[in-house]
Amino acid sequence: MQSGLQVRPVLRVLFAVAVLVGWLVATGVARPAEEDDKAKKAVQEVLDSQQAAWNKGDLEAFMAGYWKSDDLSFYSGGEKTKGWQATLDRYKKKYQGEGKEMGTLTFSELDISIANADNAIVRGRWQLKLKDGKTASGLYTLWFRKVPDGWRIVHDHTSKAD
Amino acid sequence: MQSGLQVRPVLRVLFAVAVLVGWLVATGVARPAEEDDKAKKAVQEVLDSQQAAWNKGDLEAFMAGYWKSDDLSFYSGGEKTKGWQATLDRYKKKYQGEGKEMGTLTFSELDISIANADNAIVRGRWQLKLKDGKTASGLYTLWFRKVPDGWRIVHDHTSKAD
Repeated sequence: MQSGLQVRPVLRVLFAVAVLVGWLVATGVARPAEEDDKAKKAVQEVLDSQQAAWNKGDLEAFMAGYWKSDDLSFYSGGEKTKGWQATLDRYKKKYQGEGKEMGTLTFSELDISIANADNAIVRGRWQLKLKDGKTASGLYTLWFRKVPDGWRIVHDHTSKAD
Repeated sequence: MQSGLQVRPVLRVLFAVAVLVGWLVATGVARPAEEDDKAKKAVQEVLDSQQAAWNKGDLEAFMAGYWKSDDLSFYSGGEKTKGWQATLDRYKKKYQGEGKEMGTLTFSELDISIANADNAIVRGRWQLKLKDGKTASGLYTLWFRKVPDGWRIVHDHTSKAD
């Protein structure tokens, strides 16, 4: 009992220090730079795979970068699309429908910001080169979350240049 | 010394538990619902203030919702604006320039998602009613961070309906 009483203040200080360390690490104040680099690399790989899949005309593979959930959200041109399947259907209609083409997609001006251990914001520019030589382009903002499958886009806001 | 040796395993377990608790709380796995509610309320207040400021024609007050930093980013219509001052200048030019008007702004369909203790994603629709009865509208995605001044928009992606 006596030894317990002597030890208690030490325990309290240690507990406080430990909670603080846990907190600092988890909030990213003390997040190791290597973890951020690892996360950035994982996000970059998702984007690279998406670009490659698009340019092979493989929309299903392109969609692998998105969170496979009914809560996926996609904003473009004033319209909201909700859910993974609806987003795939939108892409199919817009780029594989009659008289449509997928063109050649290029992502550029990428900025990958790791907000914390499981959230990232990605900003970039897209460009679509069509067969007739015309191009369309614009900007996008992606919210990535680390879900059980890995880093996935949970919200996409894509807009077109005026 | 002997008492120290007896205590050590207890300390180790306590330390591990404390780090775990700190981690869970900070990553949000164990984030109290009240903290999320508090954060949501704070973000909502920023948006309410912005809407009110706009409708008084007070662009400086409207800009108070944005992070006062050269790293603020604003995406719209394929164009990037970098920095608080440049964003204010853009708004002035676009809505207070010759022959321009600010109109009446309404935010709707708000979705405030608290990602963790200092990051939030806000999605919504904007509508601008002009004197001649015409309206413009579109969607926006805002990345809010909790900075020393409070919750502020650090990135804004606003797009117009086609």
